[in-house]
Amino acid sequence: MKIGFVGLGSMGSAMAPHLVAAGKPLSVHNRTKAKADKLVADGAVFAETPGDAARGEVVITMLSDDAAVEETVFGKDGILEALPKGSTHISMSTISVALSERLAAAHAEAGQEFVSAPVFGRPDAAAAGKLFIVAAGPAEVLDLCQSIFETLGQRTFFFGEEPAKANLVKLSGNFLIASTIESLAEAFALVGKAGIDPHAYLELLTETLFSAPVYKTYGGLIADERYTPPGFTAKLGHKDVGLALDAAEDLQVPMGMASLISERFLTLMAAGAGDLDWSALGKLAKRDAGDDKPLSDG
Amino acid sequence: MKIGFVGLGSMGSAMAPHLVAAGKPLSVHNRTKAKADKLVADGAVFAETPGDAARGEVVITMLSDDAAVEETVFGKDGILEALPKGSTHISMSTISVALSERLAAAHAEAGQEFVSAPVFGRPDAAAAGKLFIVAAGPAEVLDLCQSIFETLGQRTFFFGEEPAKANLVKLSGNFLIASTIESLAEAFALVGKAGIDPHAYLELLTETLFSAPVYKTYGGLIADERYTPPGFTAKLGHKDVGLALDAAEDLQVPMGMASLISERFLTLMAAGAGDLDWSALGKLAKRDAGDDKPLSDG
Amino acid sequence: MKIGFVGLGSMGSAMAPHLVAAGKPLSVHNRTKAKADKLVADGAVFAETPGDAARGEVVITMLSDDAAVEETVFGKDGILEALPKGSTHISMSTISVALSERLAAAHAEAGQEFVSAPVFGRPDAAAAGKLFIVAAGPAEVLDLCQSIFETLGQRTFFFGEEPAKANLVKLSGNFLIASTIESLAEAFALVGKAGIDPHAYLELLTETLFSAPVYKTYGGLIADERYTPPGFTAKLGHKDVGLALDAAEDLQVPMGMASLISERFLTLMAAGAGDLDWSALGKLAKRDAGDDKPLSDG
Amino acid sequence: MKIGFVGLGSMGSAMAPHLVAAGKPLSVHNRTKAKADKLVADGAVFAETPGDAARGEVVITMLSDDAAVEETVFGKDGILEALPKGSTHISMSTISVALSERLAAAHAEAGQEFVSAPVFGRPDAAAAGKLFIVAAGPAEVLDLCQSIFETLGQRTFFFGEEPAKANLVKLSGNFLIASTIESLAEAFALVGKAGIDPHAYLELLTETLFSAPVYKTYGGLIADERYTPPGFTAKLGHKDVGLALDAAEDLQVPMGMASLISERFLTLMAAGAGDLDWSALGKLAKRDAGDDKPLSDG
Repeated sequence: MKIGFVGLGSMGSAMAPHLVAAGKPLSVHNRTKAKADKLVADGAVFAETPGDAARGEVVITMLSDDAAVEETVFGKDGILEALPKGSTHISMSTISVALSERLAAAHAEAGQEFVSAPVFGRPDAAAAGKLFIVAAGPAEVLDLCQSIFETLGQRTFFFGEEPAKANLVKLSGNFLIASTIESLAEAFALVGKAGIDPHAYLELLTETLFSAPVYKTYGGLIADERYTPPGFTAKLGHKDVGLALDAAEDLQVPMGMASLISERFLTLMAAGAGDLDWSALGKLAKRDAGDDKPLSDG
Repeated sequence: MKIGFVGLGSMGSAMAPHLVAAGKPLSVHNRTKAKADKLVADGAVFAETPGDAARGEVVITMLSDDAAVEETVFGKDGILEALPKGSTHISMSTISVALSERLAAAHAEAGQEFVSAPVFGRPDAAAAGKLFIVAAGPAEVLDLCQSIFETLGQRTFFFGEEPAKANLVKLSGNFLIASTIESLAEAFALVGKAGIDPHAYLELLTETLFSAPVYKTYGGLIADERYTPPGFTAKLGHKDVGLALDAAEDLQVPMGMASLISERFLTLMAAGAGDLDWSALGKLAKRDAGDDKPLSDG
Repeated sequence: MKIGFVGLGSMGSAMAPHLVAAGKPLSVHNRTKAKADKLVADGAVFAETPGDAARGEVVITMLSDDAAVEETVFGKDGILEALPKGSTHISMSTISVALSERLAAAHAEAGQEFVSAPVFGRPDAAAAGKLFIVAAGPAEVLDLCQSIFETLGQRTFFFGEEPAKANLVKLSGNFLIASTIESLAEAFALVGKAGIDPHAYLELLTETLFSAPVYKTYGGLIADERYTPPGFTAKLGHKDVGLALDAAEDLQVPMGMASLISERFLTLMAAGAGDLDWSALGKLAKRDAGDDKPLSDG
Repeated sequence: MKIGFVGLGSMGSAMAPHLVAAGKPLSVHNRTKAKADKLVADGAVFAETPGDAARGEVVITMLSDDAAVEETVFGKDGILEALPKGSTHISMSTISVALSERLAAAHAEAGQEFVSAPVFGRPDAAAAGKLFIVAAGPAEVLDLCQSIFETLGQRTFFFGEEPAKANLVKLSGNFLIASTIESLAEAFALVGKAGIDPHAYLELLTETLFSAPVYKTYGGLIADERYTPPGFTAKLGHKDVGLALDAAEDLQVPMGMASLISERFLTLMAAGAGDLDWSALGKLAKRDAGDDKPLSDG
């Protein structure tokens, strides 16, 4: 199976090597060619355009946002015009439900297959092949993709035949993470202002009811007030909660907590703190409780 | 060490037997005497008043709310007038920070000791001796209480010398649980309206980033739409988030998410659904997304 | 001055007659031709396409939303391709800031002039020539438009040279109206549940600090629980507050109250009540306070 | 009719002179005696205690909050023990619904009459005898109070026999004002960041749909960024919205907007800006939109 891989950002560059290591013939494309050097040295072929990467059985896209995916698929020398009939585009980026539906329609019209397979996991999980993959698409196509999913992730969860469902699940997951962060932000601001040691407090939480990775990771960042370098920025958090809200609006599902969180991220961005880790909601809660450190500091 | 135990509600009646089983001489009091029968059969002595239960070295209170604790401590035949100088009142109820401070002051003035030790865990955890205990009070008094804590809980977390700190930590914990519930409520309403199977969704969450008990318990109740019988009612959730907000107001810590959740619980109560499990926030989110089942049904 | 007028909905059909009455040579276009019959009988000429209406010095558009304006301007036989160089497009619809900026750029590139002049006022105010007009555009072009504004409105407020500023002002105004409605909704739910007569309460408000039309109109509708026929629907309220939020997001201005209101409108829509008057927020507040009448009733 | 007047703060000291001028025999009490000097010079008698001021047919209280009223009525040498059977206590302070109910019950038990008559209007309106009075109490007692109301205010609105209803109406009115302020705060932050002149914007609002005093007053303060000296502080706004929320909680009426506003005031207070005018919500909205001036500046 010839595979193309488009997008060698922090996630893609951690994922693609697993495909090479698994012995799959890989063609890779990235806007900045240098990012492909290591992969090419290891046996991949560089494709000059997204279209060139899409001439095999499968092309995977792992890009930063809707705009990048749109350009890569619908643009000149893009995937849509190059992908052979019957071949499959696996979109692993976190994109909007609406774009996913548009991609499904466009590929169907072109006689191509389309699968959505966004992931949970930070770059270190990608590098370890430990991503969780959320996949949706036609059953027989998913079967074909199975070996790819097994190469890239530790487990795949399937959500039926409509690709956009996987995107909705992914976006709702990021909303849940953001909710956890905001709730921790408020709780730490509260107990912190009362003089309670944040690390003792975090230990209580994570060794009792809140023993999940999401509490350990973000509770730790807030307790340490360590908002830089970002694992995932406030700006991206704002974008993803916004995409969840867009989907909720289309489905007519009021989400008051999501709205509130969206405004909190926007407040960080307005203060010049959009590039901090999204756990910087903890800093914002502390600021609103009277702390006078500027938000834009790391 | 002679111990008194006041309050044999669903929590207290699951906790007190551990003290009897551990061979501690126990005097118990409850407004409804019949609830003490089993304990008395097992060797405890019934005390006719809270004061009568408080004539030993330690008296434990495990009551439903501030009003019950106030009546029990400050009322006629109450603990304050009966507890010997140097003896200790361990308050394990979930009460307000303000009442905890008032108790600390009153006991200090009476030459008595006071420790706050609220717990995390439902009645089944209490019955299994698996509670998590959050304790604060004078160090040497906490030392004396240690064997009691070990009898009742699986682990105790200490938060310093001021009893009210333990109450603040407990209330903040209940706020975090309520936040998790509301975020799950919104997420399930969203994916559910899109036609995604709630149990498949829950499995994804709890086997990846959200593997903590709090997600399993409340995600399960929401996925099953099983809001009765309540483990902890919406009404009590409203009360506890309200106590967290009261403390936040005194400390001048804005908590937008807590405010939002408080209004959600109040909406359930106004609809006659205050006695459902607090996870019925899931039902409210679904109703607001267009579901027309009345909230007050179980 | 030859004028074209595109859009004979409830607002446009109340505005255009004033231009005919003022003796301006008027060419009108509407998708449903019949709506132009009366105007044609009074001396206007029917234009088969938006483009045909745009061959004079000025073309006015008064349409329902962004999509309609986009189609009318950028579509086949649209305004952009027909409007002579140097002629002016006056957009009076309530549209997004982003579309207004796009229109300004497109018209500039085509050598055409563009003015934004959205209005405040319901159809009855339009019929009476009593609209308030919010205008922005190049100063010398606004001068030329002055006689049109005077024909259609009772007063025009100018907001400088950038057309999109007028749209932002208009959207912010609709947000302020929606805020007033939601605040009244909550206040009436509160005093109403306490048994206070809503009309006595309304009289107090409007004869003291809240003597503005906005309180009289919406307070009256809420006190009467008269949500149909709609003057302006909840769905349109949701759209306009959404456009204000979109602009706020681009400008990085957090608007917590706007977000909250947006969710309230969405709740109405999800319940099938999106076509009620936007003052039906009053009904929603009452429902959330325990009233069990279905929202979708008029 | 012998009248007592307790409380010569900024409101009371502007009201009491009208009673003297109207020729009523007036006995006045204030904690700081000096504030009564002018009134005594004009013919009033100084009462050493609240009780001493309460030995006539009517005693009026005009105090800052619940605590002051409680102390004055229930405390040593207070009104409750001194007021003759059949005489009337008119409470004109902005107090909680709960305290009003408690006062009604206590006076009834003592064979005394009780009327609630809180006011709308700032000190300048009080000085001009232009207050709006919101009154509730037994009909025949209100009749007796009529001449007092006419002396102090320009118009009285009656809300039935239960005194606490007047307090609820007053609190809901302050909530409506606070809502207006927050909506203006967000709107000005939005248009201001877009570069629109705030005074031009204010003119548009107040000369069209928003012509009420509440928009002129608070819109003016926000446009001018003139938050000191305060006419009514953020701290007091927080208190009154909090009392409205307390009443709403008792009545089980969710008020999302009120909750949001309460958190905004608390954010001002946490930043040391609680003593600015409550229109400083405008400053907070601007700060959250990226303005970096400290909130605590005037």
